Amino acid sequence: MGRRAAIVGAGHTRFGALEAGPRELLRTASELAFASVDRGFDRRAVEEVVLATLGFGGWQIGNVSAVLAEESGLAGTPTIRVENACASGGFALRAAVHAIESGACDLALVAGLEKMTDVASARRRYWLGVSGDTEWERSAGLTFAGVYGLIASRYLADHPGAAEALVAVAVKNHANGARNPNAHFQKIVDAETVRQAPRVADPLGLYDCCPVSDGAAALVVARAEHARRYTDSPVYIDGVGAGSDRLAVQERPELTRFAATRRAADEALRSAHVERAAIDFLEVHDCFTIAELLAIEDLGFAGPGEAVPLTLEGATGPSGRLPVNPDGGLKAKGHPIGATGVSQAYEAFLQLRGAAGPRQVPGAEQAMLHNVGGAGATAAVTILSSG
Amino acid sequence: MGRRAAIVGAGHTRFGALEAGPRELLRTASELAFASVDRGFDRRAVEEVVLATLGFGGWQIGNVSAVLAEESGLAGTPTIRVENACASGGFALRAAVHAIESGACDLALVAGLEKMTDVASARRRYWLGVSGDTEWERSAGLTFAGVYGLIASRYLADHPGAAEALVAVAVKNHANGARNPNAHFQKIVDAETVRQAPRVADPLGLYDCCPVSDGAAALVVARAEHARRYTDSPVYIDGVGAGSDRLAVQERPELTRFAATRRAADEALRSAHVERAAIDFLEVHDCFTIAELLAIEDLGFAGPGEAVPLTLEGATGPSGRLPVNPDGGLKAKGHPIGATGVSQAYEAFLQLRGAAGPRQVPGAEQAMLHNVGGAGATAAVTILSSG
Repeated sequence: MGRRAAIVGAGHTRFGALEAGPRELLRTASELAFASVDRGFDRRAVEEVVLATLGFGGWQIGNVSAVLAEESGLAGTPTIRVENACASGGFALRAAVHAIESGACDLALVAGLEKMTDVASARRRYWLGVSGDTEWERSAGLTFAGVYGLIASRYLADHPGAAEALVAVAVKNHANGARNPNAHFQKIVDAETVRQAPRVADPLGLYDCCPVSDGAAALVVARAEHARRYTDSPVYIDGVGAGSDRLAVQERPELTRFAATRRAADEALRSAHVERAAIDFLEVHDCFTIAELLAIEDLGFAGPGEAVPLTLEGATGPSGRLPVNPDGGLKAKGHPIGATGVSQAYEAFLQLRGAAGPRQVPGAEQAMLHNVGGAGATAAVTILSSG
Repeated sequence: MGRRAAIVGAGHTRFGALEAGPRELLRTASELAFASVDRGFDRRAVEEVVLATLGFGGWQIGNVSAVLAEESGLAGTPTIRVENACASGGFALRAAVHAIESGACDLALVAGLEKMTDVASARRRYWLGVSGDTEWERSAGLTFAGVYGLIASRYLADHPGAAEALVAVAVKNHANGARNPNAHFQKIVDAETVRQAPRVADPLGLYDCCPVSDGAAALVVARAEHARRYTDSPVYIDGVGAGSDRLAVQERPELTRFAATRRAADEALRSAHVERAAIDFLEVHDCFTIAELLAIEDLGFAGPGEAVPLTLEGATGPSGRLPVNPDGGLKAKGHPIGATGVSQAYEAFLQLRGAAGPRQVPGAEQAMLHNVGGAGATAAVTILSSG
């Protein structure tokens, strides 16, 4: 299919523990996205507004897609909220692509938001926790760190040497985050610090886990044929794919492969008419370091266990043959839930225009984004290319 | 445009205070929808699963679109949750139409769900309340009944005689509900009972307000060209439209007109290439009786204040010239938030196939559905026709 839509502008707030509230975050990300469009345009040309947010219930704001329309100066415009747990952003972008391809609109604003640090930690744990199975897993004490800890235990048992690959993922993503001025953590962490860190859910330690972050990101998405009205450097959305799975991990045949990711990747590649060999870098959903290894394998860039040598040999580093998470990933950039998938597309927008500064992936022309909800119960994959 | 997609199957649970939990409600509605498809088919042909739900946070279930996929036997399939407060159902159907028209899928399952009676009433009030403005309105004590009470006060001041039209809406919708075996309330209520009822938010009394309900509804939606593979009597979706508005009613120029509804109706009619005169009946969002009068006017079937004589003369009754809410509306059928917009399409599916039994609108060939989020901050309008 190819060139299904195009990103012509993108904005991003700092990720971290922020003073700004949800309305201000939406306003800031939207204004930055509009301002980034190379050629001036009337924002009233936007015909669809899509918001990704999990909404932690601590904001005192509902019907929040209308709030995005309001804060972006687009009150009146059709707007929807898409929520698929941590994959909300990837699915919101996909919904905008569907709206454009359907002929319903020519120009859309997509934003992702989460304001997590205002919410009491017990409530936050509840809202995150219920995105996994409660009936048999959460009620027995299994947190998301616990689920990924079990997955990591299984993976480490199957693939000797994987423990050092987890360390390498943390070290790499922190180094990448240190080059990203929007990242929650912008500090280099060495391997020994990662190894010695307190355990969270063995074998996962503190540096294996993404932080609790606030933040927002926004994209201006146009019909592909119109993209050059807005910029000489559009970033095309060539393919989108999605998948789902049983909510409870115990209901699945194996712990260390996510069927939703595999299905989403296959669909995205098929719809884009792109081979994996053409992909220059990946943005994957590394909520925990183990998730980056799984993603590389489930997306089809390595066989089972092969993400270990790939990572240890540096192939996924910024100058490797398949850079992964050049922006620092969820691990270092942070993970404001609804914003994450949109932020991945922001990174692709910079990278594929050669505008990523000190973290630029040399010659990047094609990217794959991977956004997961729950422990693999929903997944969205997006393939983008430079003009 | 015309014939943008087609409903080929529809299922509906009873609405009311139900024993069944959210998973069972989703399973029941989905199974009824699949079973209603005239010609047997493999449900694995469904390529997109869309869930509308506000999710009251009392269910201990998140990432709930994956749960719909699971409960409908479609685990693995791409799935999204759409949430626009009480308009979630209308927007979910619209998202499915976009997905089909975009070429992303040929067959979709759309379901709406709410399980409200399991949730403590303080929490329920919170979750409903935040769908209106909190900063300046809810925090000052304004509930949704309060907002609609203010709207009704203004409307009554402008249009003498309107008080009796509110009574007539309640009496009519209860009479309609008495002919709907899925309705929450299936009892006839007389005018004097409505007039004498306790006040909720003056001038609105108990019978002016929709109830708190549980329930689910589901639709099987196909590419229009494929509809006759599934049934000889598809119900076509000819147009969809949407709009939004400022969340706070105080930010709007007038209380008694909803700009979001007007915009949504105009877009839906334009995209369907249909004139209002061709519409045989309406399903409107009568969360309060005053809302039915506003809807009739904002949808363009009466000028300001003209819904009063239209209602008093019986034009909106089951054998009137423009039946409104033949299924009993939110008022009597009930209002399980996410299910409401999907339930409206279920009613159209029956009516436009001539299968609505004792509440059949004679000769109905074209319908308009109207679903509102908050006090008019989001609105979706859908136009459907018989094959």
